[in-house]
Amino acid sequence: MTDSTPNNPASKAWSGRFSEPVSDLVKRYTASVFFDKRMAEQDIRGSLAHARMLARQSIISAQDLADIERGMSQILTEIRSGAFEWSLDAEDVHLNIERRLTGLVGDAGKRLHTGRSRNDQVATDIRLWLRDAIDQILLLIADFQRNILTIAEEHAATPLPGHTHLQIAQPVTFGHHLLAYFEMLSRDAERFQDARRRTNRLPLGAAALAGTTFPIDRAFVASELGFEGVCENSLDAVSDRDFAIEFCAAVAITMTHLSRLSEELILWMSPRFGFIDLADRFCTGSSIMPQKKNPDVPELVRGKTGRVNGHLVALLTLMKGQPLAYNKDNQEDKEPLFDAADTLIDTLRIYADMVTGIRVKGDNMLEALKLGFATATDLADYLVKKGLPFRDAHEAVALAVRAAEARGCDLADFTLDELRASMHEVSGAAERLDSDVASALTIAGSLAARDHIGGTAPNQVRQAIARARLRLGA
Amino acid sequence: MTDSTPNNPASKAWSGRFSEPVSDLVKRYTASVFFDKRMAEQDIRGSLAHARMLARQSIISAQDLADIERGMSQILTEIRSGAFEWSLDAEDVHLNIERRLTGLVGDAGKRLHTGRSRNDQVATDIRLWLRDAIDQILLLIADFQRNILTIAEEHAATPLPGHTHLQIAQPVTFGHHLLAYFEMLSRDAERFQDARRRTNRLPLGAAALAGTTFPIDRAFVASELGFEGVCENSLDAVSDRDFAIEFCAAVAITMTHLSRLSEELILWMSPRFGFIDLADRFCTGSSIMPQKKNPDVPELVRGKTGRVNGHLVALLTLMKGQPLAYNKDNQEDKEPLFDAADTLIDTLRIYADMVTGIRVKGDNMLEALKLGFATATDLADYLVKKGLPFRDAHEAVALAVRAAEARGCDLADFTLDELRASMHEVSGAAERLDSDVASALTIAGSLAARDHIGGTAPNQVRQAIARARLRLGA
Amino acid sequence: MTDSTPNNPASKAWSGRFSEPVSDLVKRYTASVFFDKRMAEQDIRGSLAHARMLARQSIISAQDLADIERGMSQILTEIRSGAFEWSLDAEDVHLNIERRLTGLVGDAGKRLHTGRSRNDQVATDIRLWLRDAIDQILLLIADFQRNILTIAEEHAATPLPGHTHLQIAQPVTFGHHLLAYFEMLSRDAERFQDARRRTNRLPLGAAALAGTTFPIDRAFVASELGFEGVCENSLDAVSDRDFAIEFCAAVAITMTHLSRLSEELILWMSPRFGFIDLADRFCTGSSIMPQKKNPDVPELVRGKTGRVNGHLVALLTLMKGQPLAYNKDNQEDKEPLFDAADTLIDTLRIYADMVTGIRVKGDNMLEALKLGFATATDLADYLVKKGLPFRDAHEAVALAVRAAEARGCDLADFTLDELRASMHEVSGAAERLDSDVASALTIAGSLAARDHIGGTAPNQVRQAIARARLRLGA
Amino acid sequence: MTDSTPNNPASKAWSGRFSEPVSDLVKRYTASVFFDKRMAEQDIRGSLAHARMLARQSIISAQDLADIERGMSQILTEIRSGAFEWSLDAEDVHLNIERRLTGLVGDAGKRLHTGRSRNDQVATDIRLWLRDAIDQILLLIADFQRNILTIAEEHAATPLPGHTHLQIAQPVTFGHHLLAYFEMLSRDAERFQDARRRTNRLPLGAAALAGTTFPIDRAFVASELGFEGVCENSLDAVSDRDFAIEFCAAVAITMTHLSRLSEELILWMSPRFGFIDLADRFCTGSSIMPQKKNPDVPELVRGKTGRVNGHLVALLTLMKGQPLAYNKDNQEDKEPLFDAADTLIDTLRIYADMVTGIRVKGDNMLEALKLGFATATDLADYLVKKGLPFRDAHEAVALAVRAAEARGCDLADFTLDELRASMHEVSGAAERLDSDVASALTIAGSLAARDHIGGTAPNQVRQAIARARLRLGA
Repeated sequence: MTDSTPNNPASKAWSGRFSEPVSDLVKRYTASVFFDKRMAEQDIRGSLAHARMLARQSIISAQDLADIERGMSQILTEIRSGAFEWSLDAEDVHLNIERRLTGLVGDAGKRLHTGRSRNDQVATDIRLWLRDAIDQILLLIADFQRNILTIAEEHAATPLPGHTHLQIAQPVTFGHHLLAYFEMLSRDAERFQDARRRTNRLPLGAAALAGTTFPIDRAFVASELGFEGVCENSLDAVSDRDFAIEFCAAVAITMTHLSRLSEELILWMSPRFGFIDLADRFCTGSSIMPQKKNPDVPELVRGKTGRVNGHLVALLTLMKGQPLAYNKDNQEDKEPLFDAADTLIDTLRIYADMVTGIRVKGDNMLEALKLGFATATDLADYLVKKGLPFRDAHEAVALAVRAAEARGCDLADFTLDELRASMHEVSGAAERLDSDVASALTIAGSLAARDHIGGTAPNQVRQAIARARLRLGA
Repeated sequence: MTDSTPNNPASKAWSGRFSEPVSDLVKRYTASVFFDKRMAEQDIRGSLAHARMLARQSIISAQDLADIERGMSQILTEIRSGAFEWSLDAEDVHLNIERRLTGLVGDAGKRLHTGRSRNDQVATDIRLWLRDAIDQILLLIADFQRNILTIAEEHAATPLPGHTHLQIAQPVTFGHHLLAYFEMLSRDAERFQDARRRTNRLPLGAAALAGTTFPIDRAFVASELGFEGVCENSLDAVSDRDFAIEFCAAVAITMTHLSRLSEELILWMSPRFGFIDLADRFCTGSSIMPQKKNPDVPELVRGKTGRVNGHLVALLTLMKGQPLAYNKDNQEDKEPLFDAADTLIDTLRIYADMVTGIRVKGDNMLEALKLGFATATDLADYLVKKGLPFRDAHEAVALAVRAAEARGCDLADFTLDELRASMHEVSGAAERLDSDVASALTIAGSLAARDHIGGTAPNQVRQAIARARLRLGA
Repeated sequence: MTDSTPNNPASKAWSGRFSEPVSDLVKRYTASVFFDKRMAEQDIRGSLAHARMLARQSIISAQDLADIERGMSQILTEIRSGAFEWSLDAEDVHLNIERRLTGLVGDAGKRLHTGRSRNDQVATDIRLWLRDAIDQILLLIADFQRNILTIAEEHAATPLPGHTHLQIAQPVTFGHHLLAYFEMLSRDAERFQDARRRTNRLPLGAAALAGTTFPIDRAFVASELGFEGVCENSLDAVSDRDFAIEFCAAVAITMTHLSRLSEELILWMSPRFGFIDLADRFCTGSSIMPQKKNPDVPELVRGKTGRVNGHLVALLTLMKGQPLAYNKDNQEDKEPLFDAADTLIDTLRIYADMVTGIRVKGDNMLEALKLGFATATDLADYLVKKGLPFRDAHEAVALAVRAAEARGCDLADFTLDELRASMHEVSGAAERLDSDVASALTIAGSLAARDHIGGTAPNQVRQAIARARLRLGA
Repeated sequence: MTDSTPNNPASKAWSGRFSEPVSDLVKRYTASVFFDKRMAEQDIRGSLAHARMLARQSIISAQDLADIERGMSQILTEIRSGAFEWSLDAEDVHLNIERRLTGLVGDAGKRLHTGRSRNDQVATDIRLWLRDAIDQILLLIADFQRNILTIAEEHAATPLPGHTHLQIAQPVTFGHHLLAYFEMLSRDAERFQDARRRTNRLPLGAAALAGTTFPIDRAFVASELGFEGVCENSLDAVSDRDFAIEFCAAVAITMTHLSRLSEELILWMSPRFGFIDLADRFCTGSSIMPQKKNPDVPELVRGKTGRVNGHLVALLTLMKGQPLAYNKDNQEDKEPLFDAADTLIDTLRIYADMVTGIRVKGDNMLEALKLGFATATDLADYLVKKGLPFRDAHEAVALAVRAAEARGCDLADFTLDELRASMHEVSGAAERLDSDVASALTIAGSLAARDHIGGTAPNQVRQAIARARLRLGA
């Protein structure tokens, strides 16, 4: 059996359907330059640190280092200006830059790769790139959190129906509700910090997989590049992509939070809810229905969550069956990683702005609170405080609710006698009701009564905001 | 609470870090033209069929139709030549083309959208695009299968160690082994044909979600565009993305097959196996190790399987919680779909060529067959045919294998007496051994004996190839 | 390095924390009997067909067959009555049954495994099991569809706000809306039928991986067991799990549909929507809030969709990197497969019943239709029919909507002059308005006008139901 | 439309196919007691801490507390002995225990639920359960790591072919190779510690979603239960399942590492590799092939990785679209979480034992090292140290490899003159070769030369083991 040739009739079958010959297709299929060139600056930073170390250890000469620094400086300028010519033939960002360097400075360029391999080089580049992305994400999360606090403060006492099972449960304040997202984002930030710590270790020096025969100084390179430590095992250093998976998992969880918030914004903006309106610039109209104003941005956020979950699955699948050390499969790590970071960064930027454009329709929120016997739990608690065991109180109030439902009124609409009558089947309940029950059944009373850390009392919401500001250091 | 303004200090915090203002970012975030423009030809085909129907039903005039056809013809030329100016402000492929059309032909362009919506328009475009992609995939699978048959025929009798648990199990022929992939690809093709049937139904006419007040003729449009039927419910027509999920599932299964074959090629090319060599053009070298020849293409195929699994998860997640009918989340369906199709098409093209470049190292395959007592089952079967119950025969041969292992030889190396002695503990075994046992222990004898449909006997392999050619219609 | 012994201090470290020694743990870890015993009946059916073929081919005697049939009959009785003793030591369902058989009938039991292997045996069992599950699912889908048709007919003309982007878009009927799910379920049924076809092929005869040396008759076995064909390649037969993946993909898509319906039921039952009520037996209360009635079942359906998506990912991941032929990894195919089928079967049964328990609150649906200018598209269409190009009509109506919004009224509340005035900026619009515009702005008019196949006109809904009944064959 | 009744013919259709009426099915579908009862001890611990706080705050009496403590003590005994009767009618672990408590101690039992809800109760239970699971996992990881260090030390200098792309790359030591897994497991442990921190916060006190009207002391409860802090927002406290997702992501990454190690063990045990043998108790035989010894355990580990990835997807999908606060969907969090923990715990226990049972076949490893020009990089490095730029040295050695390949020998088999001749095309290469090149081409020389932190030199491997022991604190 021989390689297919132009005369091979079998391979001819499809040749007419494609303008690109298979050999060019293979080149494109295996090359990475079109996506990994975005790590060019990280590649150059890594190469410069490596070169400085090589010179410091007398593996290359001072003149070589000077040549490399001069060449890299020019290459950086070319890349930033768009003048750099990326070549598919040079496969990837590393060889593209090295070739240009050798073109510019000769033998010094050929010496740069001493004591390293693309395997440890690319691992270093991705870690540097990801560290930058995480730092940007951390700033954006904090920006978003600050804006949440501003709005939460404004609405620390604005009543909103709290839902469970999308049924009205108990009153909460809109500020309190928003603070739930502040907490989620705080955990997200912690998670990114944890992932950063495991990202910020230097693989360079592992060379292809076993280390190198040159007297390198890895600690120096780590320090030059701001890494907190070195990868302790060369085989692990070139094959590890944990940081990419862990980062994608953190992005997926953060996007899940933003998807939940989006779900709520979309619901709240639906006319039957009518709790909020979003600023026009986050919405679009319809090509056919002239009246439409659609919450496009939150819908897309919801949709993009699937995209990020998919990237996480892609990376886990990618790594699962690989023997050590480096395999070409790993080249597939970059596109999901880049896209996950881009998606989150764009989404956080837009969200930080979008929340400040929420128009709250407090009247509708209040109106909605009348629909679901939102203070029924308060009535049960009232009875408990008067000595009835909780389970009996729960039963008594359930009867009252049934009576109110039958009458088509709220619990607060009952007279004291009517209320007593409604729960007479539960012994010990009716006689514990007194005129002070009225205040337990108001929205304001219900809110104010949940006055402990984490509770929705406006007083607690304001304290939570103050603590949150301290945690943010803002 | 008001929209953020340039004076909003909170939103300023990050403004210094990005060159792109949020409003431009929102525009980019919500626009789809940069990826949906690849459906431009499908969009135009759909619009032309729609316009012809409108004219036929006297909803627009013959002159309007003529204007639209003239305009679209020019637009098609512009797009193909690269002269068409895609605008982010026009959001998507549909509005870009409609605006250009109105620019070219005036009022007729403004009438094209009569009786339709972007919701049914985009659904039509994707289905047309996907149908084209499936047709291409079906041709590529058949090409690949044909090449497999060619090689399988050449190696219908070449012995290869058959593995289970990556332990040597029984001899098979290399041709027989390749035919397993032929079967997988046949099921893949069936699955794409099934998915095509469900893709090939016309959503146009559903308009936004409820149908239209114009007297449209959906059957005519379906027939113009080659659809096999119309979507029977307008709400379903605009919200359905089953075809995209089903297609991605079919791609994921096909890529799983190619990943398994890749795993085998990589193993077989590993020096300790040494069963095959791949043509140089599917391999690359190392930046540091001068001796390396790495099977890059199969490794990438293995890696890209994760990517496609990820897309499937993305689409399932995307659709899972959406109420009817169209939501903007759906815009996120296209990139995974396009990339899944592209990945499979590239991979199939390369694989069809790559298999013809496999160099078989038959000597190493034969050498390997000596390592694992590959004919032990044949010995057991021999005893069964002489009347020993299978479980007893199995036990007797296990003893013989242990004896051979202790001696460091193969079963075939035993004399008849030695073989008898090895299994004396199982009553009825030794006395059933005769001199004809020798042929049962040869590789060729083992292969030839599996002579039934689906078996590895070279004779059966050749018949299977003949049947396969008939099924392919080639 | 030697195996760990009781004196090994390293392994002792955790031994105190677990009551189960590692050797028992390994036995449990590798055994499958606790989940694969549910294929016991399929295993017996398969064994009986195999034994009949062996006797027919004179590979075993008629007496052996009679013994096997007698033994299996007793075993089946024991299993059904719960008397059968499953043993972990016998690893799996196959060996448990074979050992019991040998215990009951002696040598005939030891001959049953002639010419087969557990590799092809288990593949046969799963396919038989899955075929049964698919058949049950197909019946349940049809039951559910029938119930949908009954309700859809009752509400063929009940107006419901049609939403896109969860904003009110256009009126549809509740019956029309439900028919969208009928269509989804029809595609689901098609997909299961397609998957069944690929499941219903016989792997038995592949033996371990290469076929067998006995003169077996695979076509006879296939016919005995109702298979439509035989797997054409022995290596593929034992390693193929496509049918499990394809089935899980079909389940995931069906559950996605049910999740979407659940999302709608939950929304519609939320008090601000108030479109429906679910029968009490599909809801539960709260342990603390006495007034709650929560739509537990649809919420669980939504949640269980994630579970099924997870199983699909598990199976794809499982198969992805395996070389041929059988590997122990495959044992992990069963639990996801069983759970996916169980989940769907339970969900379909409940849903078929639950839809009949929906109480429609038509007044609230009608009330909601007033909130979103639902007939704005009808107004635009009216203008188009009077000769205005669609894009101009769309613009004119957008102005009218803005005016109505400013006034806080619906379009239908405008006098003719007011309506004209609202759109005077678009030339050609106002003068096209006439007194007949009023009927275009009513809900009933809007519904009736969408009178084409797939449209929401009550007339069309009834025709769609009639066609649907024909398709169901009911 | 009314609820279906026994006379409903539509629902009758399938009633014949199932022995379980739908109402029982709904009960089973919505109940959780059959899987959440494994949190019974955590539920009781949580309830006792809650009751102590209630008494301390004078919300219940000292007598109530005493009754509750007495009742719970008895319940715990009943559960541990298996005497407790779990009832499906009581839905879940919480109500089962509460009902039994009230049965045992009367009114005090009815007072236990004061100031809490099942929403915060279940969140507390899961966190306590997960914290226990994480602590167990951390101990098991450390045990496994300790065993790795023991074997790595024994084989600190045993040469093994280091692979990249499954091609022989450079020599490493077997000990060095194993240390790569030590590093992975160290990161895994870090990740579990990070997840534990975010798990170990108290949700109790959030009640249903808004907090409670009782004067609770959450800090006291947190301290009683060993939580490091309290959830700061009540809505977040009941709706957050981040800890479950994050835990599953950490399990998926750990299993991915174990899957990679499994892949290697399977490869190494394949006869053509023949690098190791696994102890018999981790392997099984074949039902048909008497000679087989299959590495079942590593194969299952590989397979179970898919299962865990699936659980991660299930949880992400589950949470993605939920509005706040608690929804019944969340009930689906437990089974994936439990199974992920169980799978990892079993796998770690087995693996810790299995690695001690690896028999190393050093001769085969050494033999394999002759196949791939493993010291080619050393030769290039040699030339660089003599002054040749690395790129030129790389090219020169590539020529030498080609010459050796043509001759069918290793680089070390060349005489000095032959080696010089082989690279004469690269100017400056041949003349730099001297007799000292021989030592650079030996395996031992190659290993010893990679003498820097992270490198494979036996000396470095021993230092790495010493550092690892310090990190483990063992």
